[in-house]
Amino acid sequence: MEQEERIDDLEYEGLKILQNKNGFCFGIDAVLLSDFAKEIKKGSKVLDLGTGTGIIGLLLCKKTQLKKIVGIELQKEVAEMAKRSIKMNHLEGTYQIINENIKNIPNILKQGTYDAVVTNPPYKKQKTGLLNEQKTKQIARHEIEANFEDFIRVSFQMLKDKGNLYLIHRPERLVEIITTLKQYKMEPKKMRLVQPNKEKAPNLVLIKATKNAGEFLQVEKTLQVYRENGEYEEEILRIYDKGGKK
Amino acid sequence: MEQEERIDDLEYEGLKILQNKNGFCFGIDAVLLSDFAKEIKKGSKVLDLGTGTGIIGLLLCKKTQLKKIVGIELQKEVAEMAKRSIKMNHLEGTYQIINENIKNIPNILKQGTYDAVVTNPPYKKQKTGLLNEQKTKQIARHEIEANFEDFIRVSFQMLKDKGNLYLIHRPERLVEIITTLKQYKMEPKKMRLVQPNKEKAPNLVLIKATKNAGEFLQVEKTLQVYRENGEYEEEILRIYDKGGKK
Repeated sequence: MEQEERIDDLEYEGLKILQNKNGFCFGIDAVLLSDFAKEIKKGSKVLDLGTGTGIIGLLLCKKTQLKKIVGIELQKEVAEMAKRSIKMNHLEGTYQIINENIKNIPNILKQGTYDAVVTNPPYKKQKTGLLNEQKTKQIARHEIEANFEDFIRVSFQMLKDKGNLYLIHRPERLVEIITTLKQYKMEPKKMRLVQPNKEKAPNLVLIKATKNAGEFLQVEKTLQVYRENGEYEEEILRIYDKGGKK
Repeated sequence: MEQEERIDDLEYEGLKILQNKNGFCFGIDAVLLSDFAKEIKKGSKVLDLGTGTGIIGLLLCKKTQLKKIVGIELQKEVAEMAKRSIKMNHLEGTYQIINENIKNIPNILKQGTYDAVVTNPPYKKQKTGLLNEQKTKQIARHEIEANFEDFIRVSFQMLKDKGNLYLIHRPERLVEIITTLKQYKMEPKKMRLVQPNKEKAPNLVLIKATKNAGEFLQVEKTLQVYRENGEYEEEILRIYDKGGKK
């Protein structure tokens, strides 16, 4: 598949990323999640569960002053691409990739030591959706190798007390997201819906949950991607822009 | 307090309502909830928990073809006002008021016999918020006589299997709302955030939950009340308007 790879310019702080046009290329989800998580504090140790080609981690290296980020990616060829993207961006000292199923991480890395976890997990349950895509895309999109509960349980195990989890998912799974977070003492603290424009229903939800925190949910204003004239909303331009806040 | 009463024109199908300017006058919440619940089917038997002056029931009598609606209101003088409003609108044959604590309803009315429940419960927990208002307002706004769990438990008991609950509440309590609904087998099926305008965080959330239904949440587009120029959004005009769909 090597010959299908291309280098894409992220147009953000000079970042570049390797992607495969037949594989799973990053979407707005990853960009929104890295912006949602940009409050991650200076010197933080961060874990990215289900890293893919590394887009979230690359952006977080520029948007925050994190000390170290570890990305977990199950698929060998995807993990290798992420490693090469990291080298291309000279971030080897900060960003490490581990080619592993996220479910095994609590046995490999030290539990309770991460300040933050970010994750853009597979959105679809194993039995739903079309399963005729190629394997690489299937694993990125469907809960084949790990399900939502696995992502939350591992997040809880790896985070420090009061550490934060930032995730993006589909709104139709919000009930399961909230009940699973509560089950693992990951208190939902912030939520933001994302809708394509003013007239369309939300298709993404951003959630911040804090390990062992007290109850209080801050629901932020819904993020609209496009204006009525079809152009990007100002906030989206800000997020994609070189002018994005660090 | 009689002398402080006034008759307000609802500007909707000729409806009028008695309110007391020193008491708890209805807000946009009640109007939005009655619109959200207007899918209630022809011939339905409906229960309104915490009726206040009867605004939601009056609107539902016009927006739907319900057969019968019973409103439960704890405060005697408020319940009396609701009764007089019902007479003023000639709806005595359809709309009944019971002056009672909602917690006692399962012992008074037949359980499992309602097609729909609507409720605009107190938003604030007993211990939070300022408690220096007059008693009438306190009970309407704070969980003094019944808490959120009471409203959900009673809804579950009174609804038929697959009956629908329509409620409006504050977004900061969404986690508790969802976990309590799940606890009582009231599956959240539809959710809509309401925000004052594009730039402000949501301050209301509308939820439909169905007794013993399967999991799947439809999150609708966020409802904005005001346009950027400060005028009502078209949808709000439609909801308040005589042109509102029946």
